[in-house]
Amino acid sequence: MTATAPSFHAPADPVDILRTLIRCPSVTPAEGGALAYLDALLSNAGFATHRVTLTSPDTPDVENLYARFGTRGPNLCFAGHTDVVPPGDPTHWRFPPFEGAIQDGLIYGRGAVDMKGGVAAFIAAGLDFAGAHGHDPDHADLPGSISFLLTGDEEGPAINGTEKLLRWLADRDERIEHCVLGEPTSRAALGDMVKIGRRGSLSGTLFVHGRQGHVGYPHLAENPIPGMVKLLAALKAEPLDGGNAHFQASNLEVISVDVGNPAFNVIPAEARARFNIRFNDLWTPDTLAAEIERRMVAAAGNEVRFTLAFEARSSDSFLTAPGDFVDLVVEAIAEATGRRPELSTTGGTSDARFIKDCCPVVEFGLVGTSMHAVDESTPIDEVAALTRTYAGVIARYFALFGR
Amino acid sequence: MTATAPSFHAPADPVDILRTLIRCPSVTPAEGGALAYLDALLSNAGFATHRVTLTSPDTPDVENLYARFGTRGPNLCFAGHTDVVPPGDPTHWRFPPFEGAIQDGLIYGRGAVDMKGGVAAFIAAGLDFAGAHGHDPDHADLPGSISFLLTGDEEGPAINGTEKLLRWLADRDERIEHCVLGEPTSRAALGDMVKIGRRGSLSGTLFVHGRQGHVGYPHLAENPIPGMVKLLAALKAEPLDGGNAHFQASNLEVISVDVGNPAFNVIPAEARARFNIRFNDLWTPDTLAAEIERRMVAAAGNEVRFTLAFEARSSDSFLTAPGDFVDLVVEAIAEATGRRPELSTTGGTSDARFIKDCCPVVEFGLVGTSMHAVDESTPIDEVAALTRTYAGVIARYFALFGR
Ligand SMILES: [Zn+2]
Ligand SMILES: [Zn+2]
Repeated sequence: MTATAPSFHAPADPVDILRTLIRCPSVTPAEGGALAYLDALLSNAGFATHRVTLTSPDTPDVENLYARFGTRGPNLCFAGHTDVVPPGDPTHWRFPPFEGAIQDGLIYGRGAVDMKGGVAAFIAAGLDFAGAHGHDPDHADLPGSISFLLTGDEEGPAINGTEKLLRWLADRDERIEHCVLGEPTSRAALGDMVKIGRRGSLSGTLFVHGRQGHVGYPHLAENPIPGMVKLLAALKAEPLDGGNAHFQASNLEVISVDVGNPAFNVIPAEARARFNIRFNDLWTPDTLAAEIERRMVAAAGNEVRFTLAFEARSSDSFLTAPGDFVDLVVEAIAEATGRRPELSTTGGTSDARFIKDCCPVVEFGLVGTSMHAVDESTPIDEVAALTRTYAGVIARYFALFGR
Repeated sequence: MTATAPSFHAPADPVDILRTLIRCPSVTPAEGGALAYLDALLSNAGFATHRVTLTSPDTPDVENLYARFGTRGPNLCFAGHTDVVPPGDPTHWRFPPFEGAIQDGLIYGRGAVDMKGGVAAFIAAGLDFAGAHGHDPDHADLPGSISFLLTGDEEGPAINGTEKLLRWLADRDERIEHCVLGEPTSRAALGDMVKIGRRGSLSGTLFVHGRQGHVGYPHLAENPIPGMVKLLAALKAEPLDGGNAHFQASNLEVISVDVGNPAFNVIPAEARARFNIRFNDLWTPDTLAAEIERRMVAAAGNEVRFTLAFEARSSDSFLTAPGDFVDLVVEAIAEATGRRPELSTTGGTSDARFIKDCCPVVEFGLVGTSMHAVDESTPIDEVAALTRTYAGVIARYFALFGR
């Protein structure tokens, strides 16, 4: 019933865990030793671990890890990924990208921020939690369970990752009650932002059809480009919405227009435009696609022949409305960092788009500035403060929801 | 003083000349034997001939031919090209493209229409003219001179062709008073159209500059595509002009828009649009470029950053206004074909854009339907009728302008 039971174990060192993880070259889809290391660490601490290799005909096999301490609910899950994006040319780095060099209070390496730092912090907090209960998952004082959902396919196609791993859990009747995703959400200083939602993402391609011909005889051809200009103007003419209490307005960006006509004397047969929409919870991918179609039909009239194709892998928005769970995360952040985080729903997508279908999820982690960049690094102080934050989340969670 | 002097020579056979020309595989820049053949033919008939090889650092050397019968003015010049576009896959042809097969009254082969047919017809007419004057270029009855300006670089880059050949003539104080260009101008039947002008052509590229970024954070980026859409709409918003008595309205076609962004989650840094304008004699390339620049500056305001680049090789329009010269060509066409041709200025550009700076020029030739296509062919009757037309032009020309 309490997370402050007397502890006889040495506290886990998140910086040591982080350095070990950085030394595993786990560029998607390579496991790089990262999950094997965590598997051993957690097994030794009394966690029940499951290495889950997920496969799909079109993409490489990917290893994932699910580990749980405790057998009863509620199950508080920390989610994350150990895969990283490629380092680029290692000679551009101040320190080798898979070394974990520490200098002037910073630890350097690919994934330091995104998100081996977050993983190291919640693993350390979890090990301390297990240690406080004698590394015994059946310990009489356990107020519930904590678990780790770790994927090796977040930075890649994300096909053999969190989405399928959650299905694997569901198939085993393994329940998660609440989830914290450890992605880097802080903006300028640790604790200044927590994500309680994310916008969804819908991509599509607009084709405008014409008829090829010679520029000298335009009446014998049909140039698709003026029609494309008209439809693109209509696509952006009206805002999709004005946003709401938790979300900024949905936004459409045309990200490419392509004809590929090399000849100055030829009118082309077709023009293509590709667009992406980041949308709030006023829409689903289906309602939004219908709205785009409606706008295009209206703008095209009988003049412009077009086809609209949406990408299959759209992602829904998610929102974990402020309430008990969000509040306890905010309080834990404030206590460990001295900052009251902004409740944000901005930015790109994350694996929370899959987790939200299982349970409430919030995202909190390190400052993301250097993610995906050369010399990715994080202050080791902030790794320690993040570990305290996650420990605080665990304590407050079981104080509120524990048995 | 007369072109009807008694003739003792056998008339030249234009179909035989055409077949010989088709058998020369003179795909630009190859001479293929075509000019060597004509050089010999014309030299034997009393013409003074000049093989002119023109060179330029960036393109292949090209052979050209200038031949003149007579030493006094006025000099009536027939212009054309012996180079042809590639035949494509010869197995797609009914007859080999460089054979000159004749079947059912048609002669087949690459260049039959564009424009070895025209060349064969005016060479035959010129040989008859020389024969009628005893193959003697100093013949006392000669009312002036006729000449042939033949290039091997019309279908290619047109750098080592007519433009430079005219400069070569000017450097030698060689004057041409009037010119007939033998390009295929007839539309459905020989004689239905003569070109007394051509629109000019100006090409350019519009670059709109932005700043790359992630679609999730559009405020940190600057998408160039909405600006491009705005500028392209402004480019076509107002007609350039309404045309005039001899020309249709100038027309701008945006022929390509390209961004080349492969990622749905990236806002691109730049968008490019390429356009071509076919313009009438209300504009020069310079005044037109200034007008396009003016429109873009007005539409861009302070919001859109753009760059405008025009292609160096624009071509001016030309017009040979109806009058004595156009009239005599029309009368010759009517007499030989039974059709009164439409005086047209439509279609693409031709080497007349260079010739017009030397002297009045009109274009008349075969029906162009099969030009540049598989099974390019022309009725041999029409080659004969075209030869009679050119002979009629010569007779009427010297009746009117001869000494
Ligand atoms: Zn990440
Ligand atoms: Zn031609």
